[in-house]
Amino acid sequence: MKKVAVILSGCGVYDGSEIYESVLTLLALEQGGARYQCMAPNIDQMHVIDHRSGEVMAGQQRNVLTEAARLARGEIIDLADASPADYDALIIPGGFGAAKNLSNFAVAGAAAVVTPGLISFTQAIHAAGKPVGLICIAPAMTPLLFGKGAICTIGNDKEVAAAIEAMGGQHQECGCSDIIIDDTRKIVTTPAYMLAGSISEAASGINKLVDKVLQLC
Amino acid sequence: MKKVAVILSGCGVYDGSEIYESVLTLLALEQGGARYQCMAPNIDQMHVIDHRSGEVMAGQQRNVLTEAARLARGEIIDLADASPADYDALIIPGGFGAAKNLSNFAVAGAAAVVTPGLISFTQAIHAAGKPVGLICIAPAMTPLLFGKGAICTIGNDKEVAAAIEAMGGQHQECGCSDIIIDDTRKIVTTPAYMLAGSISEAASGINKLVDKVLQLC
Repeated sequence: MKKVAVILSGCGVYDGSEIYESVLTLLALEQGGARYQCMAPNIDQMHVIDHRSGEVMAGQQRNVLTEAARLARGEIIDLADASPADYDALIIPGGFGAAKNLSNFAVAGAAAVVTPGLISFTQAIHAAGKPVGLICIAPAMTPLLFGKGAICTIGNDKEVAAAIEAMGGQHQECGCSDIIIDDTRKIVTTPAYMLAGSISEAASGINKLVDKVLQLC
Repeated sequence: MKKVAVILSGCGVYDGSEIYESVLTLLALEQGGARYQCMAPNIDQMHVIDHRSGEVMAGQQRNVLTEAARLARGEIIDLADASPADYDALIIPGGFGAAKNLSNFAVAGAAAVVTPGLISFTQAIHAAGKPVGLICIAPAMTPLLFGKGAICTIGNDKEVAAAIEAMGGQHQECGCSDIIIDDTRKIVTTPAYMLAGSISEAASGINKLVDKVLQLC
């Protein structure tokens, strides 16, 4: 039975993992006959956003791993304790947490850096020839994780696509029910809530991404 | 197009709405051709639970509506501002939030009371002959919301079932892929994560519940 690492970045679209994308990913993995293990870095969130108002909640601080545990019903491990050899593939759902906690892309754009623990884990998975799936805004990390020339999509946002190209990635436009595959590097990406207007729309692309990642294992 | 009210109680199984149950409910409503509106009471959570350790996080306080907004990508309204006449049905997902924030069943058992705003909204929906679906532990509120004799399930937990009977409800055992229907009162219940060992298992009962609720509209 294939076992897939799922890296979360908190719990909530504006400061953590996008909840629908994460749940749809886990459901699709289960329906595809795979097991999964959720994990997250044990670091502070960039900030906490009030999801009603969209504003920063002053004086609040939350931990990425602790909040991501909500999305995993407590069944989560510290990314620092995860061994790449235990997994056949990796998937990173979107949400601003991918651009605020896993990297600082949301504020640094093309000058972004990725959280060190994420780089080492992802590169070990990648170097072993195992596939990696990235969803929504998470593919903005593609050139930083896999080097120049890596192919990905975040849908059709011109500013984000330009930043990906500036970092050395190759961006391809993609609809929300479809996926982009970098066959050489075994990287699969889908826009999800970069474009989706509903849960079903997000599901259509995420289901294809999960199927492809499992097929590439 | 049918429009369904979905009442949330926070964001996370141990102190709010169970995330998987909530997302599966919204997905099934969408796939069933219905629209939905998430809502939650604008009150403090009973407490905040660290979902890794299961322990109360000392000194933390969070608002039910603010946290539930995470589950709705911000598209949520205050239960106090919701008009029952705008909806064709109501569904309440589970999670401890239903027994800690929507009611105090988790600490008071058969002596529980329900948050006032929830009673008036639910009874107005019910009095208009519209169906109500309750998931997981939420059905423990059935006798308090619909009066003596109302039929429901929380699976097969003998202690919870006894408390429901003590409050005047009629509990029926049920597997996690099935539903219990009180035809007279148009109440549909399913155990979900009272029994489920996986997201797919929870989905099997929740999909049946949503189908039945929409059919009863």
